[in-house]
Amino acid sequence: MKDIPQIAKDLFGDNHLAQCGGGHKICLNCYNCHLKSPERICDPDTNLASVIDATILKAEAKRKDVEELCKTANLYKTASVCVNSYFIPLVKELLEQPVKICTVINFPLGASSPEAILNEAIAVLEAKAEEIDMVQNLSALLSGDYKNNLLSTQEVVNICNKHNALLKVILETCYLTEEQIIISALLAKKAGADFIKTSTGFGSQGATIENIALMREVVGPKIGVKAAGGIRTKEQALAMIKAGANRIGASNVVAILQ
Amino acid sequence: MKDIPQIAKDLFGDNHLAQCGGGHKICLNCYNCHLKSPERICDPDTNLASVIDATILKAEAKRKDVEELCKTANLYKTASVCVNSYFIPLVKELLEQPVKICTVINFPLGASSPEAILNEAIAVLEAKAEEIDMVQNLSALLSGDYKNNLLSTQEVVNICNKHNALLKVILETCYLTEEQIIISALLAKKAGADFIKTSTGFGSQGATIENIALMREVVGPKIGVKAAGGIRTKEQALAMIKAGANRIGASNVVAILQ
Repeated sequence: MKDIPQIAKDLFGDNHLAQCGGGHKICLNCYNCHLKSPERICDPDTNLASVIDATILKAEAKRKDVEELCKTANLYKTASVCVNSYFIPLVKELLEQPVKICTVINFPLGASSPEAILNEAIAVLEAKAEEIDMVQNLSALLSGDYKNNLLSTQEVVNICNKHNALLKVILETCYLTEEQIIISALLAKKAGADFIKTSTGFGSQGATIENIALMREVVGPKIGVKAAGGIRTKEQALAMIKAGANRIGASNVVAILQ
Repeated sequence: MKDIPQIAKDLFGDNHLAQCGGGHKICLNCYNCHLKSPERICDPDTNLASVIDATILKAEAKRKDVEELCKTANLYKTASVCVNSYFIPLVKELLEQPVKICTVINFPLGASSPEAILNEAIAVLEAKAEEIDMVQNLSALLSGDYKNNLLSTQEVVNICNKHNALLKVILETCYLTEEQIIISALLAKKAGADFIKTSTGFGSQGATIENIALMREVVGPKIGVKAAGGIRTKEQALAMIKAGANRIGASNVVAILQ
């Protein structure tokens, strides 16, 4: 395992290294620990449906596929339905409490300009998205442009906070080294993301147990960790939760919950 | 072959069916024929480099990959370099005349809301993109919501016109039936697109000779047809041009031009 505190020090300097009051291993002065929000750790006895984002994001998705998924989500009371933003009005019409409206931005390539990402965030929030899964500025991260990556996420955090929307930052771990996963998770935490998430489902690999454990290690208990990509059975979902995930993205919800 | 005039009639009504002065087989009152713009047909003796969009759109692209591609594009004088919008400032700095700055929006899933697409278009145009390759509102098309598809493209056409930028509408033919390709091409033509384009390169299949021929048949001579996805040799590129393409998207430019 890489030296996470050292990587944090290299990124942000000495003054953010103390163990903070929130039980974070690495304090980034993100102030999450000062909030009265509950810890984002999944109780193994929790109702599995309540931590699932029922997801349909493929290009060839049709209205009737989304209608079908909303029915399932309402039946099982999943955490959310996650759709591309074209389908937000439809989902808004069909979903029942407590199922949230989740959408994606800068997705799946993670390569839009900060202005384009912010503009997209504004559009989906005005359409009443309650949760946003945003691919980090992956091009910036891979090019070593951490400042751009951080600032871009911070801008989206700010606009999400104004709309009381939850922001999950997708790392797309399949294209990252272990060190880059740590850096990316630290940048998301520092920016004020509510969750970090492993994968888009469109990369070369989805969630792994090892990456979930690493991501939880980096962000501590107050930030959520979502496993997504290739999770098709109840056993896989429970293994991800055991490793530290507190949200699961899945397209075949029935297979996991039955 | 499907009855293209009948499909046009079903879409837009009788009054758009006459053969128009521009040599279009199916007139949609798009007024392209009244413009003094040259026909967008590729002369087989043209310099091949001048019709190639040198392209790098993969999620894991780094700054140095883009720098390398810009060097190649400058050397051969390709039509453009096509990058995700994060890289526009870099490309702007590196490219030399006559190579244009091309970017993508609503890419590659074609499933963003019209507002998100328009906002993204504004952001990339303000960043000085000169050509935009936009995936059509594919979710709307596949759901039979042609009105939304048309209006969404029209909004982007309007903003592109204000910035003197070229708009290429990507159909993502791999997810469409022959009839849907015709409908999609007609909607893009009606909306005022400058080009239609086969593929994102991220779908289940890229450009085919048959689809290029069909698309050229539908839009006539005044609208461009771009072949993209899986074109890796000079022979493939020339075959696409022979079938009706006047622009080629390719990532390995050197292999095609040497």
